[in-house]
Amino acid sequence: MNATAQSAAQASYLSAPHAAETLRERLAQELPPEVMAGETLSYQRSTAPTSTTPAFVVWPETTTQVQCIIRHAARCGVPIYPISAGKNWGYGDACAPRDGCVLLDLSRMNRILEVNTELAYAVVEPGVTQGQLFETLERQNLPLWMDAVGAGPEASIVGNVLERGIGLGPYGDRFAHACGMEVVLPNGELLRTGLGAYEGAKARHLTKSAPGPQLDGLFTQGNFGVITRLTFWLMPKPQAFSAFFIRLHEDSAIEQLVEALRPLRLSGTLRCSVHAFSAMRVLGGFTRYPYHLASGEHALEREHPKLVASMLRRYRVPAWLAVGSLHGSRVEVRAAKKVLRRALAPVRSADVHFVSGKLAPWLRRAGRILERLGPLAKLGDPLNKIEAFVEFLQGRASTATLTGSHWRGRHEAPSNQDPLDTGSGMLWVSPLLPATAKDVREAQNIARACFHAHGFEYQTTLSQVSDRALCAIMSIQFDRESTNESARAQRCHDELVDALVSAGYVPYRGHPLTIARLHDKAKTHWALTRQIKDTLDPQETIAPGRYVPTRG
Amino acid sequence: MNATAQSAAQASYLSAPHAAETLRERLAQELPPEVMAGETLSYQRSTAPTSTTPAFVVWPETTTQVQCIIRHAARCGVPIYPISAGKNWGYGDACAPRDGCVLLDLSRMNRILEVNTELAYAVVEPGVTQGQLFETLERQNLPLWMDAVGAGPEASIVGNVLERGIGLGPYGDRFAHACGMEVVLPNGELLRTGLGAYEGAKARHLTKSAPGPQLDGLFTQGNFGVITRLTFWLMPKPQAFSAFFIRLHEDSAIEQLVEALRPLRLSGTLRCSVHAFSAMRVLGGFTRYPYHLASGEHALEREHPKLVASMLRRYRVPAWLAVGSLHGSRVEVRAAKKVLRRALAPVRSADVHFVSGKLAPWLRRAGRILERLGPLAKLGDPLNKIEAFVEFLQGRASTATLTGSHWRGRHEAPSNQDPLDTGSGMLWVSPLLPATAKDVREAQNIARACFHAHGFEYQTTLSQVSDRALCAIMSIQFDRESTNESARAQRCHDELVDALVSAGYVPYRGHPLTIARLHDKAKTHWALTRQIKDTLDPQETIAPGRYVPTRG
Repeated sequence: MNATAQSAAQASYLSAPHAAETLRERLAQELPPEVMAGETLSYQRSTAPTSTTPAFVVWPETTTQVQCIIRHAARCGVPIYPISAGKNWGYGDACAPRDGCVLLDLSRMNRILEVNTELAYAVVEPGVTQGQLFETLERQNLPLWMDAVGAGPEASIVGNVLERGIGLGPYGDRFAHACGMEVVLPNGELLRTGLGAYEGAKARHLTKSAPGPQLDGLFTQGNFGVITRLTFWLMPKPQAFSAFFIRLHEDSAIEQLVEALRPLRLSGTLRCSVHAFSAMRVLGGFTRYPYHLASGEHALEREHPKLVASMLRRYRVPAWLAVGSLHGSRVEVRAAKKVLRRALAPVRSADVHFVSGKLAPWLRRAGRILERLGPLAKLGDPLNKIEAFVEFLQGRASTATLTGSHWRGRHEAPSNQDPLDTGSGMLWVSPLLPATAKDVREAQNIARACFHAHGFEYQTTLSQVSDRALCAIMSIQFDRESTNESARAQRCHDELVDALVSAGYVPYRGHPLTIARLHDKAKTHWALTRQIKDTLDPQETIAPGRYVPTRG
Repeated sequence: MNATAQSAAQASYLSAPHAAETLRERLAQELPPEVMAGETLSYQRSTAPTSTTPAFVVWPETTTQVQCIIRHAARCGVPIYPISAGKNWGYGDACAPRDGCVLLDLSRMNRILEVNTELAYAVVEPGVTQGQLFETLERQNLPLWMDAVGAGPEASIVGNVLERGIGLGPYGDRFAHACGMEVVLPNGELLRTGLGAYEGAKARHLTKSAPGPQLDGLFTQGNFGVITRLTFWLMPKPQAFSAFFIRLHEDSAIEQLVEALRPLRLSGTLRCSVHAFSAMRVLGGFTRYPYHLASGEHALEREHPKLVASMLRRYRVPAWLAVGSLHGSRVEVRAAKKVLRRALAPVRSADVHFVSGKLAPWLRRAGRILERLGPLAKLGDPLNKIEAFVEFLQGRASTATLTGSHWRGRHEAPSNQDPLDTGSGMLWVSPLLPATAKDVREAQNIARACFHAHGFEYQTTLSQVSDRALCAIMSIQFDRESTNESARAQRCHDELVDALVSAGYVPYRGHPLTIARLHDKAKTHWALTRQIKDTLDPQETIAPGRYVPTRG
């Protein structure tokens, strides 16, 4: 028995609550009181049907404090669950996969350590939110843009990169546009990935490239370390920018749209990640499930098709709304518009609207005027949405993208649109599919049937995750305060994941509930990650059960 | 002691040559004779000052045979060194870092398993060369392009991806445009990375994305497994294509050029990786070191500046020649040309020439006519070079890119331009630098002084490896048959690596001689890779000493 295994065995002598108490005492001796202060209640809330309870919460402010916490936790045999801002809506929020973990809340580590205009990057700590970085760029009037994701202004950049989230702009693939991780390993040591491993390496913020095996990928969707710093690439503000909105008035035209857009991504005309929202998904952004008119037992579009039709009409919601943007010099954007228009010509029932950056403030004003005119208010609402979207495409993360998350919530939304406050339940299942008509049809047929069978509206977003693949973010929305709906949502989730994976559509990330259903479907992969976990973290100090299967 | 450690201990009872003999016998019993047949002599040749001798060579044809070889090698405690085509010129060629390894030559595994036109990819085995894939695309008249690297038509695609090589087109970053590895692990098990881990996953050839830690990077520049299959993305043939050649007539103008091109990469106007060749590097493509006029003891440009000037004039070689290409629809390429011209206007002494794909055959004819005209032959030579380059930018890997590797060789080149046959020595040092004037100046000052101090011509290529970083491929060229020059080359290499790393310019890949000098400069990184090696390959069966440091 080696030294590490011995100390693991010693740790197991302590019963779990006792061990956590010991850890709390030791940390209280070494760390400032503000690291230890605070409540745990808010961390037990989740958009998922179930949630977990932490032992206690720590709020470190520095990497050294994180190292101290990890070292003591390993010694006491208490698991640690790191969260950046904890806004992983639909995929587990701030909850550890199991009870009794110490929550390592990194939101106080929120320094933007550097913004480099010449080489277009920012170095950020895990607590830095996308709203915060956007505000900083804007306040300092820097000629840089960031790519935003739909998780709202309070979502962490580092957290999203580590989950390999997908934004809407040319830097939509968040992980592909980041490098230089600083990682606290399970033994408390500090690792810098890439060139950061070399003292003074000048290109350390500029490329993932460095000699030897590339480790960054290992620390995404894993539990081999706590990331305390990251370089996040920014785009220079382009000379010209144009958002585009493609509306499809027939549902099945989405298949033609996917075929039309794929060549544009492959050829480089489209550098952004186009996201296409289904009608029910868009509707959720404007209003909620009408519990006063329907039971909640069945999918609204199946039970009350006429009601849905009138709601869609009211908010002028098309069958699909696809959103993207073009960037470059004025001549290039003009050229790309032509190519895009031409490519869309054969797409049935499609129209496309371009909105330049300059037009967005005008839309906002127009929306306000329409609102004041009373009966035309419903027109103003979509205009405000468009304006928010155009700004979103320029990096201003908006709470507007969160309004859709309240669909079956029954309480009023707070100003930050936190779905936890509306009682809204969400489980997101995000399968990867080839960007072809056939696969879009097949994956949707499976999903729609499953949603409807369990009495939920089929809401989905199709996002380009690479030049060749899409991810369909399928959102099971339910009333989390209803036991019945929660149970149905979980059954819907389980069947949906199994059916999709059987058909070859595997989620790209997921709630622990989702990932648990994948472990026996890719045994060698998960066994290898487990083997690496065993060597780097033999005591399972960091995030046990998150992605990598637990031992045994 | 666990089972693995026990069998490792048992293996060590066998003395090394005995163990190799045992392994050979066991393999001969299980595998067809053609896997075992053949000579080892050609594998001992290297462009480096020193080389190593393998125990014997095996030529498997299937993944199952590779698994069998790895399993037996692990049991016998004999290390295996896998090579794809063995053309890793300047970085170690086909040589293992040490004597006595069994060379696993994968060149007979040369099947192109699939070419998909709709989704633009090819699935290839490690023996597939870039020439072979290009010929296949052309013969079948498929509307797809591949990105070529300068290692000649006989270089392996998989081998180059695993070394994270850099080509010239929009898919220049080879590793960024590949996914879906099939890996034989040190225990003989088969791992499929990404979605390939899931039976029947439909997007497995289309994205690196998949749930859980991303492992592909781990298998690049490492020794954790033998890659037997890979998906390599291809570009759809663009509607329009234009190569461009930027000539700088003043040496220091390269700094301005780097500043001018960076914003174009950052903004997406340039999607290709521009490569800039220094005068001495270009000269090496036309002719050789004039041993009849100079001693070989000193850098030619220092000892005989007038001679060099006349040689440069003869071949019309500018101070720098930068090469790249534009792709897209006709309107887009036209727009990008405008933007590029405008960006180059402030670059001192620069001129730019655009050559469309259609013009290339014309150039070839013009070159031939000029050659026939006798006195103008010297004009024809550069034209042929341009033509070869334009075709190269369209994926036709050419032996023309290898002619520069014979600079100090004394024997005639064979038709495949193999540098091993000319007695040419090469050690390539490839530091990463920020794409800024300051860093280009600083890194070059360090390197030039070092080359000159050891009596070698300073030959370099600056390549864009990301939107923000360059890599300078510095080529120490020497007469490998001269003990004096070989010893000087090694000293030059050692000093160059140390000086560059001290200044913050770390190589992105390298010969084992280079990597050995980096191990104590990034201790946590290398210790972690060593820890992973210990758990995945406790007996060091696969490529001991390649990138990951050996135990102890």
